Amino acid sequence: MVSLEEIRSPEDVRKLHKDELPLLCDQLRQKMIDTVSVTGGHLASNLGTVELTVALHRVFRLPTDTVVWDVGHQCYAHKLLTGRYDRFDTLRRKDGISGFPKPEESEYDSFITGHSSTAISAANGIAKAKALSGDDSYTVAVIGDGAMTGGLAYEGLSNAGRSEDRLLVILNDNKMSISQNVGFVSRYLSGLRTKVRYVRWKQKVATTLRSIPLIGHPISNLLEWFKKKMRRSLFTDTSYFEKMGYRYLGPVDGHDLDDLVQAMLSAKSIGKPVLLHVTTVKGKGYPEAEKNPDIFHGIGVFDPATGAAQVGGDSFSAHFGDTLCQLAREDDRIVAVTAAMKKGTCLDAFSKEFPTRFFDAGIAEGHAVTFSSGMACGGLLPVFAVYSTFLQRSFDQLLNDTSIMNNHVVLAIDRAGVVPDDGETHQGLYDVAMLRAIPHTWVYAPSTFKELELNLRQALYDTDGIAAVRYPKGGESPALADYEPSYKHYDYMDSKRRNLLLVTYGRTFGEVQAYVRKRQRNGEHLSVLKLNRIHPLPEDVVDIAGQYATVLFFEEAARQGGVGEHLGACLMLHGYTGRYAVRAIDHTLGACTTAQGLEATGLDVAGVAAFVEEYTGE
Amino acid sequence: MVSLEEIRSPEDVRKLHKDELPLLCDQLRQKMIDTVSVTGGHLASNLGTVELTVALHRVFRLPTDTVVWDVGHQCYAHKLLTGRYDRFDTLRRKDGISGFPKPEESEYDSFITGHSSTAISAANGIAKAKALSGDDSYTVAVIGDGAMTGGLAYEGLSNAGRSEDRLLVILNDNKMSISQNVGFVSRYLSGLRTKVRYVRWKQKVATTLRSIPLIGHPISNLLEWFKKKMRRSLFTDTSYFEKMGYRYLGPVDGHDLDDLVQAMLSAKSIGKPVLLHVTTVKGKGYPEAEKNPDIFHGIGVFDPATGAAQVGGDSFSAHFGDTLCQLAREDDRIVAVTAAMKKGTCLDAFSKEFPTRFFDAGIAEGHAVTFSSGMACGGLLPVFAVYSTFLQRSFDQLLNDTSIMNNHVVLAIDRAGVVPDDGETHQGLYDVAMLRAIPHTWVYAPSTFKELELNLRQALYDTDGIAAVRYPKGGESPALADYEPSYKHYDYMDSKRRNLLLVTYGRTFGEVQAYVRKRQRNGEHLSVLKLNRIHPLPEDVVDIAGQYATVLFFEEAARQGGVGEHLGACLMLHGYTGRYAVRAIDHTLGACTTAQGLEATGLDVAGVAAFVEEYTGE
Repeated sequence: MVSLEEIRSPEDVRKLHKDELPLLCDQLRQKMIDTVSVTGGHLASNLGTVELTVALHRVFRLPTDTVVWDVGHQCYAHKLLTGRYDRFDTLRRKDGISGFPKPEESEYDSFITGHSSTAISAANGIAKAKALSGDDSYTVAVIGDGAMTGGLAYEGLSNAGRSEDRLLVILNDNKMSISQNVGFVSRYLSGLRTKVRYVRWKQKVATTLRSIPLIGHPISNLLEWFKKKMRRSLFTDTSYFEKMGYRYLGPVDGHDLDDLVQAMLSAKSIGKPVLLHVTTVKGKGYPEAEKNPDIFHGIGVFDPATGAAQVGGDSFSAHFGDTLCQLAREDDRIVAVTAAMKKGTCLDAFSKEFPTRFFDAGIAEGHAVTFSSGMACGGLLPVFAVYSTFLQRSFDQLLNDTSIMNNHVVLAIDRAGVVPDDGETHQGLYDVAMLRAIPHTWVYAPSTFKELELNLRQALYDTDGIAAVRYPKGGESPALADYEPSYKHYDYMDSKRRNLLLVTYGRTFGEVQAYVRKRQRNGEHLSVLKLNRIHPLPEDVVDIAGQYATVLFFEEAARQGGVGEHLGACLMLHGYTGRYAVRAIDHTLGACTTAQGLEATGLDVAGVAAFVEEYTGE
Repeated sequence: MVSLEEIRSPEDVRKLHKDELPLLCDQLRQKMIDTVSVTGGHLASNLGTVELTVALHRVFRLPTDTVVWDVGHQCYAHKLLTGRYDRFDTLRRKDGISGFPKPEESEYDSFITGHSSTAISAANGIAKAKALSGDDSYTVAVIGDGAMTGGLAYEGLSNAGRSEDRLLVILNDNKMSISQNVGFVSRYLSGLRTKVRYVRWKQKVATTLRSIPLIGHPISNLLEWFKKKMRRSLFTDTSYFEKMGYRYLGPVDGHDLDDLVQAMLSAKSIGKPVLLHVTTVKGKGYPEAEKNPDIFHGIGVFDPATGAAQVGGDSFSAHFGDTLCQLAREDDRIVAVTAAMKKGTCLDAFSKEFPTRFFDAGIAEGHAVTFSSGMACGGLLPVFAVYSTFLQRSFDQLLNDTSIMNNHVVLAIDRAGVVPDDGETHQGLYDVAMLRAIPHTWVYAPSTFKELELNLRQALYDTDGIAAVRYPKGGESPALADYEPSYKHYDYMDSKRRNLLLVTYGRTFGEVQAYVRKRQRNGEHLSVLKLNRIHPLPEDVVDIAGQYATVLFFEEAARQGGVGEHLGACLMLHGYTGRYAVRAIDHTLGACTTAQGLEATGLDVAGVAAFVEEYTGE
């Protein structure tokens, strides 16, 4: 009897008798549920693609053939079948198995993802490289219907369809993206699904198919006739994909292994770009997840028996959502925009209270910004709530479509700084450098919930242009429980000694403050300058810092282009001759808890202490 | 008789008798040809949209109704009809009329463009703001078929189609984008064009239409019947746009004023998103431009009688194209990618010599990068040639899809620094800050053609990750005619005096060198440090600079996040106590010649002299 434990590589999957596969699928699901209930992770979409993954490994030979998983919210089964079963309980943990495909981790992972809508473009490139070097292996992109709302997927689909390469795009249609699907793709796919009956490959077609030598023989009239017949029965209202340059196959039931295998074999026989439309059920096989795919999309620790999730603590995100609702009650110009992150950015309540003033653009951060800029032109006050890492997709829309006209768009940048669990592709490290490069931009970095509320008001009413408020995933530092913000652009805690100044902002202020308290208990008083508005740098900051013999800057963001580097340049210009050093983030950062991430980057209390010691010997 | 000179506002256009309009169109064309032959500009697409623009101003009332011109390569007629005739000869000149829509310039320009594919998103936002405030005026986006290859246009189309707002998207289908159109859009539109005969609105429909009160009356059965009839005759294979949420109208002959006006009136009567498909001829009315729309897309000074263009001098772009061909002959892993800028980046010869190794992604910079990263995965050496300003659209693809995996992609960044004529939206100021923020990135900045060749080799063979070579539009500085590059990461011209060091890179080295020569002729010797690789900063640079009493940095790029700011931070860390100052670009920069732009930013010889004087009194 099959045992998932004993599957060491895809070869083992290919060796199984097909009757053993359903049990393998059950075991894959059970392992995922057991693991994710402890580690947290993306459960619903992974449960939905178990059969799809098994079929892929039956039909294609990795790593010779290549699979690119879009986003990667569906790669767990793939990881379990490619030699990572033993370490699967380290999922999303430091030095453990990444929650996303990661070439460093395995030769079976071809391309890092984590950001949506990239797989077709990447697969197009990989397939092209193979074609140019005479390699006739296959490249497969697996992409969800949600990811198809992103413009990059459209660019990829349109360009890859022009090639003549051995490329298979599998559209994993689970009728929803992260939350509800939006726009054209949803409407179009639902048309395809309702118009045709499911194709029963194994009954109608497959036996005949097997008896015909599809590859390597001259094309016979019979084959042509057969293909035409097949085409008529299979291809329906597929003009969109066909005009894109694809042979369209489907829709195929994504939980029927035989159908999936036959459809993939058929796709392989075509030798040109094929789009295989597979319908799956998000959360398949775990009733709690099937009922609540949204909740089980990305979930923390939960009870596998009941599906009950552990309730998280209070968070910046929740305070943002509450504050925006309150502000929107007072000012009907305020509108909220998200890019498929309604729950993550805590805009649920807003969307219910102000349905006509809430816009989910789908996974389309570029549109979200230009659309917001347009609304600003029309006199509204748009607030775009977005994770730091995904804001990277709006650089040109911020610069060209917003900043040059000085349109007033507010950015609520969630998941700024170290982000737990998701690894390299989800760290919020680059928003500061990115925004600093854009003219007419203001950036606030609250350290507490109260400050977040204030900063949001300042961003809305005290500025023009692009005004961003960046805050981390999670809650306030306990060290700031009794901290009363001064509501200025900076808070200066002057020890009256001029030997050492610690400068910082955002969450790191909690760590610095904890360190300062500790020193205080020894009777040592340290000066701290906490930036509330980090860009443009408040004017007095350089003057204040210039008075100190040593200035140390702590920044939970990338060093290059960061505020620390900027303050250094300002001090230099100012003729400062003391010592200045910056602790910021120099490298990419893999999966970790927040605490581990802060430790690894030297931005926790111990790191602050070590940096101070390095420069002052104290 | 109508005279374009006397048209002061769109109201004057509406007052004309319709029989006068063809003459107005002739006058518009003549004025464009006469002006652009002297100023240079985007001629072909502007000639193609004369009737479209006149019809827009007849049917819609600007600025109450709003028009967003995508890219803006079709706004000249609009400018001539909205009070800018008198100043039109200042087109693309300093303090003159911008070549693109610019709200600062006129209340009739609603949104700045210049970058492609943004208009639908912006119009979606403007229309939404109107809807929420109860304003029932119309918002129109005019977008070309070329711009439809960009993912942002798809995101905009998909999202705007979900609204119920008064939005008209006019698809200006001239069967080509900047060069040849690519992919799905082209195939789909050509299907629409060939399948149906042109709709003769005025004959079949218009008279009936005029007699029916379309707006403000209860919908009668007759109207419903009529609409159904009309629908059947007009709507063809339009499932793509209809599924997007639009009523599709067209295709309409974009040079038939009556048809255009009737189609727009009909669109206005629908009150929900409408897509009006208009076919136009690029270069219409000027035989030279109709024959060679590519050449007349963006053209410099030319002879209006013969269409003969003034030949430009030697350029970095041309040397890039030549060098890449040469390298590709030696190494068949080299492939070239562009995003609808084959001519501009001088990849024409490459595309002819290596047709299977050349890829034009359309206006899809995001795809171009992720596709390149995929090819790099497969062992190729992709070179993506792109203008600095458009690279902004690839920030996340560079960061997430390339840098994290350390895939080796070469960027040939053309139009870096000050860019003549096109104004704010086309300056190449932000690539340096953007690339510096991305890990595993190398940036070279050649000052001469020889250096460009060398840097390209270095980028291909001496680095991993992302390796960029940035160079300006235009040619070498005459001051560098006899300059022999040292082929190191920096060139250090040591005067042996330690009072003053000038640091710079790229084109600005020519200006600095001209200044230094001048001082030399007076017997004054200055030290110059010329960076060839500007990022990461070569190690010795800080040590060398640290020896000088005063260090002045000249940078033809944005200050925030630039190399100058970085060197300042490094010197600070190094314990440098001398004087350090950076001259870089702090503001957006409107249309100008290169010389004017360098003057305005203080980066020409005079600016260098002034900055030195400011800091040294000499």
